[in-house]
Amino acid sequence: IQENDENIHTVLKDFSEFQQKRILSINSQRKTICIEGSFNNKSGTAIVLLEKKPFNEESLKNTLDYSCTLHKEFSNDIYGFYECFPSVKYNGIKTTVIHPATEKHIKKYQSQDVHLIEETPELYNSVTLPHLQKEKFSLQWVINILEHKSETDRVVFEDSNPEIGFILLPDLKWDAKQIEDLYLIAIVHQTGIKSLRDLNSCHLPLLKNIKEKGIKAIKEKYNIPSSQLRIYVHYQPSFYHLHVHFTYLKYVAPGIHAERSHILSSVIDNIELMHDYYQKATLSFVVKETETLFLEYEKRGIVKKR
Amino acid sequence: IQENDENIHTVLKDFSEFQQKRILSINSQRKTICIEGSFNNKSGTAIVLLEKKPFNEESLKNTLDYSCTLHKEFSNDIYGFYECFPSVKYNGIKTTVIHPATEKHIKKYQSQDVHLIEETPELYNSVTLPHLQKEKFSLQWVINILEHKSETDRVVFEDSNPEIGFILLPDLKWDAKQIEDLYLIAIVHQTGIKSLRDLNSCHLPLLKNIKEKGIKAIKEKYNIPSSQLRIYVHYQPSFYHLHVHFTYLKYVAPGIHAERSHILSSVIDNIELMHDYYQKATLSFVVKETETLFLEYEKRGIVKKR
Repeated sequence: IQENDENIHTVLKDFSEFQQKRILSINSQRKTICIEGSFNNKSGTAIVLLEKKPFNEESLKNTLDYSCTLHKEFSNDIYGFYECFPSVKYNGIKTTVIHPATEKHIKKYQSQDVHLIEETPELYNSVTLPHLQKEKFSLQWVINILEHKSETDRVVFEDSNPEIGFILLPDLKWDAKQIEDLYLIAIVHQTGIKSLRDLNSCHLPLLKNIKEKGIKAIKEKYNIPSSQLRIYVHYQPSFYHLHVHFTYLKYVAPGIHAERSHILSSVIDNIELMHDYYQKATLSFVVKETETLFLEYEKRGIVKKR
Repeated sequence: IQENDENIHTVLKDFSEFQQKRILSINSQRKTICIEGSFNNKSGTAIVLLEKKPFNEESLKNTLDYSCTLHKEFSNDIYGFYECFPSVKYNGIKTTVIHPATEKHIKKYQSQDVHLIEETPELYNSVTLPHLQKEKFSLQWVINILEHKSETDRVVFEDSNPEIGFILLPDLKWDAKQIEDLYLIAIVHQTGIKSLRDLNSCHLPLLKNIKEKGIKAIKEKYNIPSSQLRIYVHYQPSFYHLHVHFTYLKYVAPGIHAERSHILSSVIDNIELMHDYYQKATLSFVVKETETLFLEYEKRGIVKKR
């Protein structure tokens, strides 16, 4: 059937054709859920991610009005506990649909045990690097952005210099509607920088340019000063083309834990203190038990399941 | 009017009589908001707390059905970004109303702006260090623990060596009842090490001893392998006597963000790469606008309120 080859996103209007297979993960703190399933008459696996939206001044206006009913659960002295029900239009849920999803996507979203690996330069060269060279997630979507083929209307700032330039745009996790959960990423134009491990003093102009111009663009567009931004890179990153995260400091964004995130100003400072710091340092990173990188380390007896 | 003395929770049906004064805090991660206001014809301040509900299997059934429309925002390759709108009855918001609320309630729920300060060695010596010397929080409670005058029954492990020894015990935030939120701290016997800034190669035996024996004690008592522990120090710490945090890696403990926490194995590695790394490095730290340390930096024009 021709329908099979059609991109799901050109036709999807509701979930009536969705068949749920299993829940991959639930985060009660963040109010997210991730489901694996499929669509009738479509081949391939689908992943659906749902996330309740944060409040802001605007949404509040529509919640605290007369049309919003209040059901009392119980009260005690000055404290009353209720459930309130705003209108449908004020209750949108952020929804991401990935289709067709690969086994790697499923692993990424499935909750599971994690381990911390202390990656020495030797382990990077003998285990992590060969693994990356073998695996390779597609970077097509990154190239689409850099070549202005996708998400062009989402670009917040571009410096088109091929050596030190970058594109700054909202991260896919941010709907760009309120600064409370501001999350942008800067994707560098220069190709071939896989991660933190590749950075040395040659990259200082690039890193400083991202910091300086990223801060300036965010100040102009969102009026947030640099002291209220968290600017960092992940190790391991989720894709191996250098990119820098910008989040609002008060926002507890996913992946900002010390075992995963490296503050950009410290990265710059480390390279200034020692030009080959990131080739010499032992870097810790977190890996899930089902990831193939975990299996590579497990095979060598460096880490084991509990 | 008699109405004034009536408990609000006996009559509250909706928010039509609510007058919003200001937003006290917003948490975009937890999807909560806290508002200060009042009710018409009622004396006293009211605080309203709203929190979106977490997903569960039940609520999911009602979200992923035909009645739930899907509005596409954009798509790129296999990724589609939507907003979905379930029926009113499946969208209840957890609501707490406190009335009449006191000044203490307001302070408790009011969020403060935070800033990131990039502390160079010069700024440490000219601003942070003089501030610490002037302020001096009491360390009596730490001394009580080290001298076995307090919390003796909580000690999990002790190495009594005065140079490299430490006491390991549950952090006050952990009730020690389940490993899901395991949180211990190691307090060193050696006095006079204020923070990360004071560490150099002399302290390598101490740091390595804490790491090795802390891991061993936790493995024996709680059966958690070292690869599932997050071992780190804070900068700035909450008290200026060297201590190391041990938390379960899967547990999202407070204060583990990259702008505050430094993984112990990286600290050891940095000192091994450069014996005076922590006297030379620029260290970022987070400070609240009401803290006196913020005021010291503000006075010098290094950071300012928005």
